[in-house]
Amino acid sequence: MKGKVYLVGAGPGDPELLTVKAQRILRQADVVLHDELVSGEVLGLVRPSARVQNVGKRCGRKNFSQEEIHSLMVHYACEGLMVTRLKGGDPLVFGRANEEMAALRACGIEFEIIPGVTAALAAAASAKISLTDRRTASRVTFLTNHLSKHLADGGPAEKTISETTDGDPAATTVVVYMPGADYELLARRLEAAGLKGDSPCAIVSRASMPEESVYCTTVAELAKIPRLAAPCLVIAGAVAAAANWPSSEAEEKPEALFEVAACTEEKAAD
Amino acid sequence: MKGKVYLVGAGPGDPELLTVKAQRILRQADVVLHDELVSGEVLGLVRPSARVQNVGKRCGRKNFSQEEIHSLMVHYACEGLMVTRLKGGDPLVFGRANEEMAALRACGIEFEIIPGVTAALAAAASAKISLTDRRTASRVTFLTNHLSKHLADGGPAEKTISETTDGDPAATTVVVYMPGADYELLARRLEAAGLKGDSPCAIVSRASMPEESVYCTTVAELAKIPRLAAPCLVIAGAVAAAANWPSSEAEEKPEALFEVAACTEEKAAD
Repeated sequence: MKGKVYLVGAGPGDPELLTVKAQRILRQADVVLHDELVSGEVLGLVRPSARVQNVGKRCGRKNFSQEEIHSLMVHYACEGLMVTRLKGGDPLVFGRANEEMAALRACGIEFEIIPGVTAALAAAASAKISLTDRRTASRVTFLTNHLSKHLADGGPAEKTISETTDGDPAATTVVVYMPGADYELLARRLEAAGLKGDSPCAIVSRASMPEESVYCTTVAELAKIPRLAAPCLVIAGAVAAAANWPSSEAEEKPEALFEVAACTEEKAAD
Repeated sequence: MKGKVYLVGAGPGDPELLTVKAQRILRQADVVLHDELVSGEVLGLVRPSARVQNVGKRCGRKNFSQEEIHSLMVHYACEGLMVTRLKGGDPLVFGRANEEMAALRACGIEFEIIPGVTAALAAAASAKISLTDRRTASRVTFLTNHLSKHLADGGPAEKTISETTDGDPAATTVVVYMPGADYELLARRLEAAGLKGDSPCAIVSRASMPEESVYCTTVAELAKIPRLAAPCLVIAGAVAAAANWPSSEAEEKPEALFEVAACTEEKAAD
């Protein structure tokens, strides 16, 4: 008899931000295949007899190709095991779930999705920024600043941000996942997208984790702030003005800063 | 001594999709002020001695104005109580949290945000649709089809959808919260936004709840499907083609259909 695969959202890092269901599935799993971004505390919930494998990427160096991950899921499920494919945040946001679901469908493996708190929601909660506001932000867009190897450098990512806010940039909150360490380039892209230089902008580092920090600035001043520890998220738009975490807060937590490596945006990196 | 207010995401309905933290805060709360959309099972976690008040809207008829909700939060917090402001989904997505946070800040009341699984993520999980795909959908936009009383009928909502996908509609997944019961109007707006008539489109009704149903169609055929029970969400774009729930599934669950009222999109309704 074939087993079943659960694509599970591990949430932003704080194990208390797992859903009750994700916690239950994790505790029952025979096999856990997890991404790099999943925290040790979350993995601590897995029972000792379960097989746990890190199939994530570290500094761009892949432990497993996407195809190998598919093979592992199928292999264990065909052994009749309960497999948990654990992804940071929510599995259906920048998580390559479409490819993994297609592989499971092709092999006739039953699967279920357990949603999670995606990074944008955790970052907004840390910064106390509502992503929408009926007066000023009627929509919110999630995108990445990541350039995959399939895309030429510069063009496509720039286009990605630009197209999002064509028309009325003021009414869109833009959340940039994996903003990268080049804040100057990011600022140029946000400005090219129609966001004004004085648009409020918050960078949230390690949302929900003990060392979380929030830095509030404007698009024009983005390049001047210190590099924050990954994973980071940028929230840009009128709503970011409400963030009440003083910029000096980050300065009071020096241990949270400067740990950054340019190579820590691994989730969707290719 | 002043109490504290927690703005808590109740998730999409299934009590197992609460976060562990939300569950803990709910169990500890002295006062719970909740929206209409919060399920009875979630409210069942509140301890019997707590004061529970529905401050939501039903069929557009408000029990409490936004200002009254602010007053209640401040009032109870000033009594030194632990107040939970419980919102469907995530508190920072279409939840008027900016207004509530501003009121709390103005009164010097401490508050904290507990993020939740927003409806888009639960609907995508039910339909087994990844909201992004590195090959076809580099971004995802959440918006509503709701016209607040501050806006003229027709124009602004149409503009809201249009502006979102200007440029390259194919690369954006559009998630429409509170799509309303007029699927013909919604289809016209999605087409005006640049989505082609044959763009895949999934409607998810009551995601994560026992009576959930998913209906897969195209933008052009949207008006032909039966009205599904609210709350509903529409996911439009290339990724929706992968939804593997057959359309007939909804037909096998007649009890889930036709319960709809045109008045059940209450979360951000004004």
